Amino acid sequence: MGEVGYTRLTIEAIASRAGVGKQTIYRWWPSKAAVLLDAFLDTPTGEAESLPDTGDLAADLKSVLRATVDEFTDPGFEAPYRAIAVAAADDAELARQFAERLQEPGLAVYARRLRAEQEAGRIDPDVDVRLAVELLLGPVQQRWLNRSGPLTHEFTDQLVDLTLRALEPRRPG
Amino acid sequence: MGEVGYTRLTIEAIASRAGVGKQTIYRWWPSKAAVLLDAFLDTPTGEAESLPDTGDLAADLKSVLRATVDEFTDPGFEAPYRAIAVAAADDAELARQFAERLQEPGLAVYARRLRAEQEAGRIDPDVDVRLAVELLLGPVQQRWLNRSGPLTHEFTDQLVDLTLRALEPRRPG
Repeated sequence: MGEVGYTRLTIEAIASRAGVGKQTIYRWWPSKAAVLLDAFLDTPTGEAESLPDTGDLAADLKSVLRATVDEFTDPGFEAPYRAIAVAAADDAELARQFAERLQEPGLAVYARRLRAEQEAGRIDPDVDVRLAVELLLGPVQQRWLNRSGPLTHEFTDQLVDLTLRALEPRRPG
Repeated sequence: MGEVGYTRLTIEAIASRAGVGKQTIYRWWPSKAAVLLDAFLDTPTGEAESLPDTGDLAADLKSVLRATVDEFTDPGFEAPYRAIAVAAADDAELARQFAERLQEPGLAVYARRLRAEQEAGRIDPDVDVRLAVELLLGPVQQRWLNRSGPLTHEFTDQLVDLTLRALEPRRPG
């Protein structure tokens, strides 16, 4: 994949590099995208079990999202991840695996942190934190997948600030 | 496209139905996705020049987003639009056209309305309304393209409410 890119990557080449026959690959994976999905899941991606916690939620979210867009603008990471995302967008079963195995665990890391902040009274109790995570990450994915805007640190910083405005506890009356 | 679906749609079939040779199609469009993009742009999609304006921003956004998810869960609309979105995600030049000709005009409709609300003092002057539109639409696209969550009216209603919290004018002190 790193050598020839996704479009020219073939199951034959994967099989050959693995020293097995093509049928062996097909026995376990229905497509090259499915092979890549499993390869991704075996590769440390820098995704941690929890967000960094300096006690400053805005700063923590900004630092994680800056690292995320750095990754998404790095061609070595970008190409296979885009290949999986495109294949998943086109294929409902792969989408289910992509969501369940790659996306949801990522979203859950944010949701846990937001829930802890909510329990500490720093996020309004009425806010659905799962939806708040989508507010934060949806625009990043949209700019990335559609190439519809620059994936800069300035963008993610502003996104964090705007999203956090929605989460502030309401002051009485 | 409506008869055979995107995957089985061929340039040959498009040419044949149009009563021209395949080379005539290729002279104008580099791919079947590019043909669909132009076909989409010639089809009224219910996208208006401006949002409905009842004077109640939340109600107006909810009604438009409910209609949007109804469209995105309608197979007749969904299949070609997904085909274009997938092709655009995989192809930088098509992505540019997709963003410029389909997505940006849609986003601009929301941005104009939010800007008018901001001028009327109902949205905080510090808010970047263009970013606010991404906050509102990014999660919808993410759920749709990744099939990562249900595209229900309940979801879009909650999304509008949460996004609007971020836009509220700050009360002094």
